[in-house]
Amino acid sequence: MQNFELTILGCSSATPTSQRNPTAQLLNVAERFFLIDCGEATQIQLRKFKLKFQRINHIFISHLHGDHYLGLIGLLSSMHLLGRTVDLHIYCPPELKEIIDVQFTYSQTYLKYNIIYHYHNYVNNDIIFEDEKVEIRTIVLNHRIPCCGFIFTEKPILAHILKEKLEKYQIPFEQILAIKKGADFTTDKGEIIQNKQLVTNRMKPRSYAYCSDTCYDERIIEFIKGATLLYHEATFMDEMLLRAKETFHSTALQAATIAQKAEVKTLMIGHYSARYKDLQPLLDEAKSVFKNTILAVEGESTRLEFEN
Amino acid sequence: MQNFELTILGCSSATPTSQRNPTAQLLNVAERFFLIDCGEATQIQLRKFKLKFQRINHIFISHLHGDHYLGLIGLLSSMHLLGRTVDLHIYCPPELKEIIDVQFTYSQTYLKYNIIYHYHNYVNNDIIFEDEKVEIRTIVLNHRIPCCGFIFTEKPILAHILKEKLEKYQIPFEQILAIKKGADFTTDKGEIIQNKQLVTNRMKPRSYAYCSDTCYDERIIEFIKGATLLYHEATFMDEMLLRAKETFHSTALQAATIAQKAEVKTLMIGHYSARYKDLQPLLDEAKSVFKNTILAVEGESTRLEFEN
Repeated sequence: MQNFELTILGCSSATPTSQRNPTAQLLNVAERFFLIDCGEATQIQLRKFKLKFQRINHIFISHLHGDHYLGLIGLLSSMHLLGRTVDLHIYCPPELKEIIDVQFTYSQTYLKYNIIYHYHNYVNNDIIFEDEKVEIRTIVLNHRIPCCGFIFTEKPILAHILKEKLEKYQIPFEQILAIKKGADFTTDKGEIIQNKQLVTNRMKPRSYAYCSDTCYDERIIEFIKGATLLYHEATFMDEMLLRAKETFHSTALQAATIAQKAEVKTLMIGHYSARYKDLQPLLDEAKSVFKNTILAVEGESTRLEFEN
Repeated sequence: MQNFELTILGCSSATPTSQRNPTAQLLNVAERFFLIDCGEATQIQLRKFKLKFQRINHIFISHLHGDHYLGLIGLLSSMHLLGRTVDLHIYCPPELKEIIDVQFTYSQTYLKYNIIYHYHNYVNNDIIFEDEKVEIRTIVLNHRIPCCGFIFTEKPILAHILKEKLEKYQIPFEQILAIKKGADFTTDKGEIIQNKQLVTNRMKPRSYAYCSDTCYDERIIEFIKGATLLYHEATFMDEMLLRAKETFHSTALQAATIAQKAEVKTLMIGHYSARYKDLQPLLDEAKSVFKNTILAVEGESTRLEFEN
C-alpha cells in the first residue's frame, strides 16, 4: 500500500509559543514530499524530527501572513547551502516571488537550483499539480487576505479483476483497465454488471484537505466532501466566536460543523491561539459535534487509511 | 552595580542545526535591552528562555544575510499582535526597510507602533546610540556583503572622592564631577594630584564588542581595544582556513589572535558551522592562543565584570 502520511511541523497561530511553532506540515503521498505552508523555524522543525528536507520538491503556501511563510527564505537558503541542484516548485500567491527576490538580491544569494513558481488563481478545484499518483487542487478560503487551501487526492488504485468473472462475461482485454479503475461492464445482451461484482479490493482513493486560515464558510464543503482527513483551523473556542469572525478565523465548533457537513472521515484541528495552553477543551468542543476529531500535534504523523 | 549581561539566543552559522539556532543575542546594559541580530526563530528562543521581548526597544542588525535577520519580521509581528505601542528603533543596512515594508504590505499588517530606522553609515566609531548609561558605536567588518559590528560601552561610573583629600587639597565644588569621572587635580601651586589618589572605587567602564560576520581583519583592533568582552565569530577550525577566507569568515585561531592583539579581557566565540557537533575542539584551538576564551551557548548569560 502506498504511503499517505501527514506530519505536523507547526500548529500554532500567528504568535508562536515556547511549545508550538507556526504552521507547517509535511505530506508524503507515495514518496512525494509536499511541504504545506512554511512558518518561521520550519527548517529547524524538519531537522528536529529528522525529516530530509532535500526530498521536498513542492512547497504550497496558502497565503502571505507571516506565520505561514516566514520560514521559507531560511529553508531555501539552507537547501542551497547544502548543495541542492534539483528544481523546486512553489505554489503560492504571486507576490511571494517579490518577497523572495528582494531578500536574495540584498544578501547576494545566487541559488544553485531553480525555483519554479506556480501562482494561485484563487479558483476552486483548480488542478495545480498532477502526476500518476496524486492530484492537487485548490480550495478558495475566506480570510483577511487572499488565501488558498489544498486538497491532495491520490489517483484511483487499480482493483483486481476476479478471474472467474473475466471468463464468465468474456470481458474483452481493452475494457480491463476501465474496470480496474471502477467502471461497470455491459454484456453483449445489454446486462450491466456492477463493478463491485467484478473486482476485489476496490479502494476509494484517499484525500487530504488542508483548510487554514479561514472563517466559517460552507462554500468549501463541496470541494472537501468525503475527504479521508480534513485539517481545518480552529484558532479559538466558540466562546471567542466574535473574535474569530473579526479575524477571519474559525472556532473548534465551526471546524467540526464543516467536518460533519462535508462527511469527512477524520477531522484534525490546529492553528491554535497562543492563549490555549491546554488543547483538550478545543478537542472536546469539536468532538461534541464531530466525534472523529484529532488534534494537530507537532512531530506526530497521521497515516491516512483506506475506507472499507 | 548596574547590569551588563549578555544572553545568547542563537550561535549557529548560516545553516541551523537541531541544537543551534542562527545568530541572535540579548544584551542588558542598565536595564536597556538591546537585541543584536535576529536570526530565524529568535522570538521562539526569547520565549523559551522567558525573556520579555516587549522590553526590547532597540534592535541592531549587522548585515542582510538571512541567518542574521530572518527572525525579525516574525518578532515585529508578534510585538504588534501582543499590543505594543512603544517606538522600536532598528539600526540596520538601509535595504532592510524595503524587505520589511514589502512583507507588511502584502500581509496587510498595520503596526500599532512606530519603527524608527537608523541606517548604517559603515564608518568606524560612528555613535549610533547614546544615553546617560551607555553609548554604542559601529565597527566596520569585512564580510561578503556590507556588515557592521557594534561596541556597547557603559558611561563612566562616578568614583567616590575621599573626604580627607577634598579637605587636604581644598578641591573646589565645580571640579568634583570631573574628578569623579576620572580627571586629575592641579593645585594652586601647579602640583598634579593623580586621580587614583583622590578617589576610591575607580572602575573602568565595561564594554561589549560584537564582531560577526567577518574574515580576519586587524583593522578592527583599535576599535575593540581592551573590551571587557569580545564576541568574535569562529565559524571554522583553522584547518578550514581556506574555506574561511573564501566565505569571509574566521577560524577559532583567528578570533583568538584578534582577542590577544586587542588585549580584551574575555573572548567569546560563536557562529559555529553546522559541521561541528562538538565545540570543544574550537574552544581548545582558541585557548591555545588566548586563554580566557569561552563558548557562546544558547540560553546562557554572561555577566560583564569590572576589572580591578
